[in-house]
Amino acid sequence: MRISELSRTTGVTVATIKYYIREGLLPPGIPVSATQAEYDGSHVDRLRLIRALVDVGRLSITTVRELLATLETPQEERGGQKEREEEAIQDRVGRAVATAHRSLSPRPPAGTPPPERALAAMATIGWPVDPQTPALRELETALAGLDAVQLAPSEATLRTYAAAALSVAEADVTGMPGRSPADTVRYVVIGTVLYEPVLIALRRLAQRHVFQQIGSPPRR
Amino acid sequence: MRISELSRTTGVTVATIKYYIREGLLPPGIPVSATQAEYDGSHVDRLRLIRALVDVGRLSITTVRELLATLETPQEERGGQKEREEEAIQDRVGRAVATAHRSLSPRPPAGTPPPERALAAMATIGWPVDPQTPALRELETALAGLDAVQLAPSEATLRTYAAAALSVAEADVTGMPGRSPADTVRYVVIGTVLYEPVLIALRRLAQRHVFQQIGSPPRR
Repeated sequence: MRISELSRTTGVTVATIKYYIREGLLPPGIPVSATQAEYDGSHVDRLRLIRALVDVGRLSITTVRELLATLETPQEERGGQKEREEEAIQDRVGRAVATAHRSLSPRPPAGTPPPERALAAMATIGWPVDPQTPALRELETALAGLDAVQLAPSEATLRTYAAAALSVAEADVTGMPGRSPADTVRYVVIGTVLYEPVLIALRRLAQRHVFQQIGSPPRR
Repeated sequence: MRISELSRTTGVTVATIKYYIREGLLPPGIPVSATQAEYDGSHVDRLRLIRALVDVGRLSITTVRELLATLETPQEERGGQKEREEEAIQDRVGRAVATAHRSLSPRPPAGTPPPERALAAMATIGWPVDPQTPALRELETALAGLDAVQLAPSEATLRTYAAAALSVAEADVTGMPGRSPADTVRYVVIGTVLYEPVLIALRRLAQRHVFQQIGSPPRR
């Protein structure tokens, strides 16, 4: 298809499509003349993915580029020994999760102190964790912010949040579609970003649900 | 204290403090001369709150202004009938939650179709919900994004996410400090924003925890 049809199919303007190609987010089409190129279904899929990451995940173009690069680096593909395949998938998925998280977290400036508050929280929760994990830095910032306004979570609240996060993470893993490494990595990377807004929206809806239940006695 | 000391105490530059005053986020100090004003502990608290909302909550200045306005509108304060006080607090808290969510969600443009995908999800989950709830719009966007990349949640996944969100919302309510209406409203509004990054960071940490457990058998 031509770029105009790609635009109609996906609802993304031609100017934006050209911008994504320049920025390396979308592969260029195959040239069919000096001024025209041909696009296919893979471009449609890629554009939908970019829009989802930008619109729903609210990611910057730079972050989207890094995430897409993760999807395209099949580092484990070279080997080929059947009996190692399963383990290789798990390893790759673990690495993809780490890369996804890294590209979502701003790198801390050199000399940033270790995330001690977050590490203490992890000890309370009981999950062993690599101190370099990027999400630990996010947790540190969040807890420091709560400390500053004297709304730090109690140990009980922290454990409740952790249990909720764990049940969701387990559902993420169980819900994995397909068995191919490419599918799995794609699901993990995209799912990390796109399911976060689902969880946030549901928490807000749950808050209203709870307040409605305790707030107003049934009238009849 | 003078503005220089307010800056030292909070780590916010004088230029930024003046910007917040101009933007109406921070009340001006009490003038003590033509060029100097006096600030107190309430300014320190307010500045820490603004920084937490900006740094941790990643909110825009406009959104912070709207949230702070919520904290300062004690619409229920006029009455005074003791027996109605408790109910008034619940009502106010419910309204504060609604206002907090509204100021966090971009208003949909006129003519936006109803969030049917999100309403269907709510029916699956079993929470009655006002179709105007702003978080419903966020859920709609998130689910539409997942549909576009063929990663829509199964009913089971949706229920797991909802159960996790509900347990967290119940902990939010149980964890409420103090009994004064002002405290309660402050906690709800700030907690909605500042606990979201905690939940997101914990979900990412939980994902790694789950993948570590299934990925690498214990070596010993």
